[in-house]
Amino acid sequence: MITGRNYIGSQLKASGTKTFKTFNPQLNKENPWVFTEATQEEIDETVILANQAFAAYKKCSGLEKANFLNAIADEILALGEELLVQYCSESGFPKGRAEGERGRMIGQLRSFADMLTEGSWVQATIDTAIADRQPAPKEDLRKMLVPLGPVVVFGSSNFPFAFSTAGGDTASALAAGCPVIVKSHSMHIGTGEMVASAVIKAAKKTNMPDGVFSNLVGGGTTLGASLVKHPLVKAVGFTGSIRGGRALFDLAAQRPEPIPVFAEMGSVNPVVLLPNALKENSQKWATAYAGSITLGAGQFCTNPGLLIAVKGAELTKFTEELATAIEKIEPFCMLHPTMQSGFQEGAQKVISQEGVSKVAEYKGEVAPNHGAQIVLTVDGKTFLENKMLSHEVFGPFSIIVKCDDESQLLSIVNQLDGQLTGTIIGEANELNAHTGIIAAMQNRVGRLIFNGVPTGVEVCPAMIHGGPYPASSDSRFTAVGTHAVYRWVRPFSYQNWPNSLLPLALQNENPLQILRTINNTQTQSPINYV
Amino acid sequence: MITGRNYIGSQLKASGTKTFKTFNPQLNKENPWVFTEATQEEIDETVILANQAFAAYKKCSGLEKANFLNAIADEILALGEELLVQYCSESGFPKGRAEGERGRMIGQLRSFADMLTEGSWVQATIDTAIADRQPAPKEDLRKMLVPLGPVVVFGSSNFPFAFSTAGGDTASALAAGCPVIVKSHSMHIGTGEMVASAVIKAAKKTNMPDGVFSNLVGGGTTLGASLVKHPLVKAVGFTGSIRGGRALFDLAAQRPEPIPVFAEMGSVNPVVLLPNALKENSQKWATAYAGSITLGAGQFCTNPGLLIAVKGAELTKFTEELATAIEKIEPFCMLHPTMQSGFQEGAQKVISQEGVSKVAEYKGEVAPNHGAQIVLTVDGKTFLENKMLSHEVFGPFSIIVKCDDESQLLSIVNQLDGQLTGTIIGEANELNAHTGIIAAMQNRVGRLIFNGVPTGVEVCPAMIHGGPYPASSDSRFTAVGTHAVYRWVRPFSYQNWPNSLLPLALQNENPLQILRTINNTQTQSPINYV
Repeated sequence: MITGRNYIGSQLKASGTKTFKTFNPQLNKENPWVFTEATQEEIDETVILANQAFAAYKKCSGLEKANFLNAIADEILALGEELLVQYCSESGFPKGRAEGERGRMIGQLRSFADMLTEGSWVQATIDTAIADRQPAPKEDLRKMLVPLGPVVVFGSSNFPFAFSTAGGDTASALAAGCPVIVKSHSMHIGTGEMVASAVIKAAKKTNMPDGVFSNLVGGGTTLGASLVKHPLVKAVGFTGSIRGGRALFDLAAQRPEPIPVFAEMGSVNPVVLLPNALKENSQKWATAYAGSITLGAGQFCTNPGLLIAVKGAELTKFTEELATAIEKIEPFCMLHPTMQSGFQEGAQKVISQEGVSKVAEYKGEVAPNHGAQIVLTVDGKTFLENKMLSHEVFGPFSIIVKCDDESQLLSIVNQLDGQLTGTIIGEANELNAHTGIIAAMQNRVGRLIFNGVPTGVEVCPAMIHGGPYPASSDSRFTAVGTHAVYRWVRPFSYQNWPNSLLPLALQNENPLQILRTINNTQTQSPINYV
Repeated sequence: MITGRNYIGSQLKASGTKTFKTFNPQLNKENPWVFTEATQEEIDETVILANQAFAAYKKCSGLEKANFLNAIADEILALGEELLVQYCSESGFPKGRAEGERGRMIGQLRSFADMLTEGSWVQATIDTAIADRQPAPKEDLRKMLVPLGPVVVFGSSNFPFAFSTAGGDTASALAAGCPVIVKSHSMHIGTGEMVASAVIKAAKKTNMPDGVFSNLVGGGTTLGASLVKHPLVKAVGFTGSIRGGRALFDLAAQRPEPIPVFAEMGSVNPVVLLPNALKENSQKWATAYAGSITLGAGQFCTNPGLLIAVKGAELTKFTEELATAIEKIEPFCMLHPTMQSGFQEGAQKVISQEGVSKVAEYKGEVAPNHGAQIVLTVDGKTFLENKMLSHEVFGPFSIIVKCDDESQLLSIVNQLDGQLTGTIIGEANELNAHTGIIAAMQNRVGRLIFNGVPTGVEVCPAMIHGGPYPASSDSRFTAVGTHAVYRWVRPFSYQNWPNSLLPLALQNENPLQILRTINNTQTQSPINYV
């Protein structure tokens, strides 16, 4: 089933000579499949094909695109058990996670299909003409969203399904009307190829133009850089490290024609524990956070890497309870040996800083490539003075900051880099006494959680997965939920354009029966010029 | 009335030593007022004050912000005749233009006030909890738009009112909830100071925090660069040249924390003349375009600098009629001697290119600083081969490209840089025969006009003033119309947040009675948890 080749549109090609393999972290050995890196000629061919496909694809109706997305979901499901086995062999994740994440990928594809079927997402806005206006007539203006052009998607390491080949970036870009070129993540190329084969099948079945989707393989940074610099590429989606995301952002910003990069990068997802919550529910929160810190071996963008509270008996009790809970949890397998070593090195670097001490760590035997969770602590003054302590350690890791007082806690929140999420754990009766901290947290995050854990990102329109830099490269957009489509479109105005030549979304009769804004009023009504 | 000092919030300060003056192009002499450049200390003080103001300003209700914007409009009108005289003395524009543009500035301020009063612009999106969902409960998520932080606005040269001190960028940023620091345009600093005084008065009268608005003076690029690089500045608005806009974009992209720059830059606003239109209405279009090319001495971003058609008897006739009309028009005064010399040099550079010839120019005597209109022509092949011919010449200038055939015309459109507008002049019966050209044009522009002139940018929600690079630095947003507010905000999610502590826009009861999206349905209804 795995060919090891690149999908240049529907064609499987591998004219290159550089090859590599993926790794099974559970078995601690290389996988058998050999993958061939795309050559520069293949990259160019892919982008040119995507740009040709754009001319046809952008004309597809919402229903046609919805059929395509639903067909992708169907074809992925049709790969059955074999796809799940492949996923596990290249990620170290257990089968339950594979099934859950496949469900999420399928759900995302179908939610974009639903959005397209309904159709109002194009934000049709119409201001009708006023022929007798003084001193000059008002022309008819009609605006809607149109796709940007070919989009490059960099799959993530930690979501081989939901944020990779046919994940949120791909689904949202295809929904927008943009052809997609995936740079397959090198840790799970086989999984990527299988999912890509489903997308290609679906494209054929629903008569999409060849080149609407391609899937390229590359080991280092050459493939990615070539794609981002290609003049016909018009936008980039990325999920990964700050270093990787910033490198792509810089390349894109330095192009003769700069293009938008939506990079979802690092986050330590600060959690503030308020005193009454610690007093009344410390055991409950210790258990919940032990679970959240270790979930999926801590390999979530929303992993709670930073717990902040004012010192005292309650915090000491919470810390002890968290330690007890943490030490009982069996370590999970990490995605790759390099992930495990990166985690170890990151954690060791923090431990070696002055003033940092260990609260808890898993003490049993640790299987190869498994991430043994670790929780550290430091006082507020030391944390404030050492920027390094607020950097993300990707894995089952968290640091508890013990503040002298509320004012020090506020300084810490104010000093944080941009974050995907921030959490306030508190009793309802104490929130009004901490509005300064809540306001400060709001300034630094994309999503503010009350009495919960940051892991678990609901896919729904009200979700924001993004936040001030470096949580994401552009806080004005989300990577999760149907509103992610707005990253890949631009508004476009027709002035005085003949009705019959307008896109259906803007025609007088409202043939799509979508919700539109006409002369500042939202309505599904047609425009009646009688 | 003119102090020559900087408004650092409500304080007038001028501790610097570098001074300069503005110029009256109609009288061809320096104006009397002396302006003092802001020092680095004053710049820092201004940004810190703006950031302090942000904490208070972002909490203001929509009604409070609407009152502020309406008060700005009132205070500007209260400056009366004196402001118009000042405007004319620093722009060379006639009084009618001053009045018209003041009307536009006032109209913009009030349209944002109306948007704030209505309130639905925050795009409140709510997905309610599902406690019994399997396998995990769904949390309550509520999203709305929140302001980014202090915004720096670079005033334009060609709209001293509508795109400067209290113009579209300032009005939209203040509407969003962002404090504004204006870098006053050096050609009309006195006008800027008068308008700034009105904004400051309005801020005091409506109890806005000091620092919600500042107005700084600077001659070179130091002030602008300092502002864009300041860590507390969170976004930038700019209207001007490609060189200037790109420099700011690069500075902002290279910051440790990159920030969005919305730069509205150059455009030649291509116009395609189809054969039947030339056959049947050549005189009408020649007259209209002679007016559009020379309007305001050609100093509009939407000036039609490029007319494209297939060669033949009809085009020859149109060219002759355009020449006749063009030569009759009295030249207008340009904004500044450097504008006039820039225009002359730009036009001469094009004339000196191989294959370019003159179609028409004003032949009478030209007063100092006036722009004598000029229209050139070139064949399609030469145009395709010389990229320089498609560069903007800012002033009353246009070039007619005579194509061999339709396919060459299509190549020319496909090769164009991104544009603010594109225009198709055609009879209704011939559009279906030219869908390729229309589709190609759509790819290159932000607004597509049928049978009209590109000058004249209606301020309404369906307007797009922006377009693919380099027309603007981010085609996903518009600089004109109420939707310009979306440049200065980011979406923000609350998860499981107590109802009474949510912003009013997201509370169950919908106290603001705004239109919200609740569980995928648009409604003004409250959420009823009975």
